[in-house]
Amino acid sequence: MPVSYVVALDVGGTSMKGGLVTFSGEVTVFPGRPTGRERGPEAAVANIRSYVSELADAGSRSFGGAPAGVGLAVPGIVSATVALYSANIGWRDVPVSAFVPAGLPAALGHDVRTGGLAESVFGAGRDVSDFLFLPLGTGIAGAVVLAGEPYGGAKGWGGEIGHTTVWPDGEKCACGQHGCLETYASAGALTRRYATRTGDAATAKEIVERAPDDACAAEVLGDAIEALAISLASYTLLLDPAMIVIGGGLGEAGPVLLDPLAERLAARLAFREPPPLRQSALGVRAGMLGAAILGWRAAGQPTWSPDLRSVL
Amino acid sequence: MPVSYVVALDVGGTSMKGGLVTFSGEVTVFPGRPTGRERGPEAAVANIRSYVSELADAGSRSFGGAPAGVGLAVPGIVSATVALYSANIGWRDVPVSAFVPAGLPAALGHDVRTGGLAESVFGAGRDVSDFLFLPLGTGIAGAVVLAGEPYGGAKGWGGEIGHTTVWPDGEKCACGQHGCLETYASAGALTRRYATRTGDAATAKEIVERAPDDACAAEVLGDAIEALAISLASYTLLLDPAMIVIGGGLGEAGPVLLDPLAERLAARLAFREPPPLRQSALGVRAGMLGAAILGWRAAGQPTWSPDLRSVL
Repeated sequence: MPVSYVVALDVGGTSMKGGLVTFSGEVTVFPGRPTGRERGPEAAVANIRSYVSELADAGSRSFGGAPAGVGLAVPGIVSATVALYSANIGWRDVPVSAFVPAGLPAALGHDVRTGGLAESVFGAGRDVSDFLFLPLGTGIAGAVVLAGEPYGGAKGWGGEIGHTTVWPDGEKCACGQHGCLETYASAGALTRRYATRTGDAATAKEIVERAPDDACAAEVLGDAIEALAISLASYTLLLDPAMIVIGGGLGEAGPVLLDPLAERLAARLAFREPPPLRQSALGVRAGMLGAAILGWRAAGQPTWSPDLRSVL
Repeated sequence: MPVSYVVALDVGGTSMKGGLVTFSGEVTVFPGRPTGRERGPEAAVANIRSYVSELADAGSRSFGGAPAGVGLAVPGIVSATVALYSANIGWRDVPVSAFVPAGLPAALGHDVRTGGLAESVFGAGRDVSDFLFLPLGTGIAGAVVLAGEPYGGAKGWGGEIGHTTVWPDGEKCACGQHGCLETYASAGALTRRYATRTGDAATAKEIVERAPDDACAAEVLGDAIEALAISLASYTLLLDPAMIVIGGGLGEAGPVLLDPLAERLAARLAFREPPPLRQSALGVRAGMLGAAILGWRAAGQPTWSPDLRSVL
C-alpha cells in the first residue's frame, strides 16, 4: 500500500521552496528554484505547476503513489481557491487548479499567514492560541493568529504590520507612506541604512554581528529594535497576544535581537506586562510546512498534526 | 402571562445607566446615577446591586414578573462571570453574583466591548462581521469586533487603542507612555490642550464648533484628527476591518469630525482603500443595549436580536 504524503510549496516573490510531507510527519525538502516572475505572471504559474508535477513524480517514486493533496503558500491577496493578486509576481485571479496536475485536491494560503499556521500547529506557538508571527525578511508582514488560525481580515489584506507607522514624519517607504516599520526594521532596511551611512554593502546578518564594535551598525540596529518595540507595543495593546514569534532571516539572529527588543518593548508598555518574545521554531521552512498543513486539509485531514521534531 | 424582559446596566467609572429591554425590543431607560467609587469598591458593588434590584422591581411592576436575566457592562478586565480588575473603581475579582439578586441568570461584559457587541448586533456594524468600534470619550478604548463578536485577546486586555503610540516623542500620557492616541484625540485631550493654549475651559463639543473660526480650536482638533488617522491607518493595515464605527460623546460631532478624518485616513494608506467610517448608531446607549444582549444570552436566548429601530 502506498504511503500517504502531500506536496507542499512555499512560493516567494523571487524563489520557491518545495517538499513532501508524509502523514506521519516525515519531511523531504527539495532544492528550491526561482519563481521566474521576470518572464511574466503566466510563466510563473507554469513554472510553479511544473515544480509541483516534479515533486509529485518524485513522491510517486519514493512512496508508491500519487500525493493525497497539494498545499501552496503564495504572496499577495489569497483565498483558499484563488490567488487574487500579487504585486510581486503580477498575477490576478489565478485559480488553485492552475498550479496543480488535474484531479489533485489542493489549497492556497497567504505566504506569511501559512507560516503562522505552521508555527501555530507545531512551532513556537503550539501551546497558545493567540499570537503574532512576525518574520523579518527583505520586507515585513505578519500573521495575526487568533484561536489557532491566521486571520486575514475582512478582505484578506490583514497582517500588514510592516506598513504601520512608527515615526509619522520618518523616512519615506517604498509603499509611499512615511516612517513605516519596514523602513527601519526589515533586513532590507538594515542593509540600505547601513550602506547609506558607510558605503559598505554588508548583509543584515553582518550588521548585527558588527553592532558591538561598530557605532554605525549599532545605530542602525538600535533604530530597528526601537521601531519594532513601538510597533509591537501597539500590537500588544490592541490584540493582547499570548506571545510574539519572531521569524525570518533577521529573526535567526536570536538573543542579540530578542533580548534588547524585549527590554524596549517592556519600556513602551507602561501599564501592562509585555507578552513573551520567542524565536520561530521552524525558521525559513515555516511557509512550506504550513503549505503541507493546507495540503492535508485539502485532502480531508483537518486534524493532521505530525511529529516534526526531526526537522525542528 | 408576564412579559419577558432583562435588566441591563452600563457601569462607568463615575456613573451608570440602566434600562429594561423586552424580548420584542422595547427599551425603557431609567435615570442614571453615580457609581459612587469614592466610597470604595465594596460600596460601588453594593450601589450597583441596589440599582439592579430597583430596576428588577420596576420591571416586575410594569411587566408582571421577574426579569429573565441581567446583563452588566463594567470597566476594566472582565470575564463573563468575574469583574477581575478595574483601575477606576478599584475592585478585584468580584463575581457576577455580587451584582445581582439571588437566582437571576446574569453575565458581565467589558464596557467598550459590550458597546461594540450592540453595534454589531443591531447598530452601525450590523451588516458586516469585522469592524472596529471606537468610542471617543474622556478616554479612548476600542472594541475589536471579529466574526461579529468583540475580541478581548489572550487575557482580556485587548482593544487598548487609546494607548497605542502615535508620535513616539510626543506629549506624556497619564498612562506613563509618550504620544498615545488618547493624549491627542480623546474629548479629555481636546479640552486639556485647548485650555493650556487659551486658558478657556471649553468642552470638546464647543472646541469642535469653534474650529472654523478659532485658529487654536482648529489646531487642537486638527492634531486629534491626524492622530486618529495615523492610528486607524495602522489598525486597518493590521486587521483589514470592513468598517470603523466612531462613537462616544466626541463621535456625535458627526461629519465635522468624520469627513476630514476620512480624508486624512486615505492619505495615510498609500497602497489600499480605507475602510468606510460610520458614526455609531446607538450613541451613548450602546453599552446598555449590549448589556441587554448579554442578559438575554445569560437567560438562554443567544440568538435574540430585537427590532430596536424605535430607539435608534
